[in-house]
Amino acid sequence: MKIVEVGPRDGLQNETAAIPTEVKIAFVDALSATGVGEIEVTAFVSSRWLPQLSDGEAVLHGITRREGVVYSALVPNEQGLDRAFSARVDKIAVFTGASETFNQKNINTSIAGSLQRFKPVIRRALDAGLTVRGYVSSAFWCAYDGRIAPEAVVDVIARLTDLGVDEVSVSDTVGKASPQEVAKLLALLLPRLPADQIAMHFHDTHGRAVENVLTSWRAGIRTFDASVGGLGGCPYAPGATGNVATEAVVQALNAEGLATGVDVVQLAKARKLLDAFMKDELRTMPAADSMACESCEYNRGEDCCL
Amino acid sequence: MKIVEVGPRDGLQNETAAIPTEVKIAFVDALSATGVGEIEVTAFVSSRWLPQLSDGEAVLHGITRREGVVYSALVPNEQGLDRAFSARVDKIAVFTGASETFNQKNINTSIAGSLQRFKPVIRRALDAGLTVRGYVSSAFWCAYDGRIAPEAVVDVIARLTDLGVDEVSVSDTVGKASPQEVAKLLALLLPRLPADQIAMHFHDTHGRAVENVLTSWRAGIRTFDASVGGLGGCPYAPGATGNVATEAVVQALNAEGLATGVDVVQLAKARKLLDAFMKDELRTMPAADSMACESCEYNRGEDCCL
Repeated sequence: MKIVEVGPRDGLQNETAAIPTEVKIAFVDALSATGVGEIEVTAFVSSRWLPQLSDGEAVLHGITRREGVVYSALVPNEQGLDRAFSARVDKIAVFTGASETFNQKNINTSIAGSLQRFKPVIRRALDAGLTVRGYVSSAFWCAYDGRIAPEAVVDVIARLTDLGVDEVSVSDTVGKASPQEVAKLLALLLPRLPADQIAMHFHDTHGRAVENVLTSWRAGIRTFDASVGGLGGCPYAPGATGNVATEAVVQALNAEGLATGVDVVQLAKARKLLDAFMKDELRTMPAADSMACESCEYNRGEDCCL
Repeated sequence: MKIVEVGPRDGLQNETAAIPTEVKIAFVDALSATGVGEIEVTAFVSSRWLPQLSDGEAVLHGITRREGVVYSALVPNEQGLDRAFSARVDKIAVFTGASETFNQKNINTSIAGSLQRFKPVIRRALDAGLTVRGYVSSAFWCAYDGRIAPEAVVDVIARLTDLGVDEVSVSDTVGKASPQEVAKLLALLLPRLPADQIAMHFHDTHGRAVENVLTSWRAGIRTFDASVGGLGGCPYAPGATGNVATEAVVQALNAEGLATGVDVVQLAKARKLLDAFMKDELRTMPAADSMACESCEYNRGEDCCL
């Protein structure tokens, strides 16, 4: 079981509030202590496109890397890859969508065009010994095209793996997939690609993200993207809420008797570092630290063990 | 299957934005056209306590009642009951908690004290031919006391049914219950109280509310509280998010092949009436109308059938 914490990148990329670089560094360092296996730290995209993440190099240079944790960054092109190399990431992620309209609106090119652009990025990253993830966005529903056929998703995934990516992250970008749709896609995909090359990435707009994680787990998937406090959203998927909360995923897997190796108390501490800077804090985050503690069952801050 | 739409009461009660009475009337009228079986329209509590709902009489007098829809109001005491009588509600709801601390902070009395206060309210309402619901808040977790023993919840429910309530609504006020905890409580409760006297009321703080609805359905429960757009929260349960979204419940039950009789397109229309008045609209509501349409699968507003 591996939790990929995407809060510092997917979570923060839509935050308009200014979050100082040193807070981001402290946030990533706190996340490194939670037990997650991988942290997507930033994106090396144009600062005009994602001003929040324009300090990616400084964040990656400032963090204290923990043995056993993979530190990655999203990379859209070769310029971004050069920045990722100089910031010494362990892994990069490229991204395309399963919907043509989403691709056009999100990265201003067709699916084929995006794959063409990623070809040298993936090859150079692999040659340099980095691991490469390929995101497939809008893998169930598209805010523009409606329902996406599982066959189309499997086709895009095959084209990504043909380019050599080590892992795909299958993303319900708008947060509308039902567990039935998740099971259907995985039934089509798993005979073609081993489970250890698949991560599932859910958003919680329609309230089923945790269930989709559990459904994926039952199908054999062991890698799940999540964002502490349920941070995030997508500017090109209007109305989509944040990533599934890491706390929610961990608690749900715990409730099934499954060990994630992730400490919810440490997650709450990491999230707390952002509270002073975020908008809508109470609304968007499961307030783990104002709830009864997972460890002692008292309310945090009162008779709690913390 | 019966969906109880609690948006106008539980959803709006914490909204600090001013929502005009005529908008509330239009909202309830739109909800009446969705196919929900019951609408909790308002609360007859002190306007100092819930200023948002101080226009309860005007709303109930202004709405157009639809045959087959039950219109209810929350009532804390005999003064509230008199107001409910004059506003011609079909049903009232009284409320207590399964946690002593929550009760003290929420309604400033013990569980026993609240039941004592409700005794004449329930008797007079039943004598007048009204139906009576009894809410049991914090039935799984309490923001102050931590985990609540299922036995304590069953005990409070028994004391409420002894007073004559027709139905209890078992509420996960903080939104932290796991499906395992829901199944456990229902296994203890259902041998003591028929399923048709039980409603389940979930909040989605920890992302499991929809799953808890489905778990309850599998246990035999057929009445579910929900709030269009996931409106709501609780001022006495810090960090708790809104009620489970009616759209999410309906879509999840539909995905299971279960007919709710509720039309998600009409739900989206009802919710849209509030959009101009709410804060954090995109964050707190599944934006059904910016997603692909349930009926035609095109994005709403583009090639959509609407």
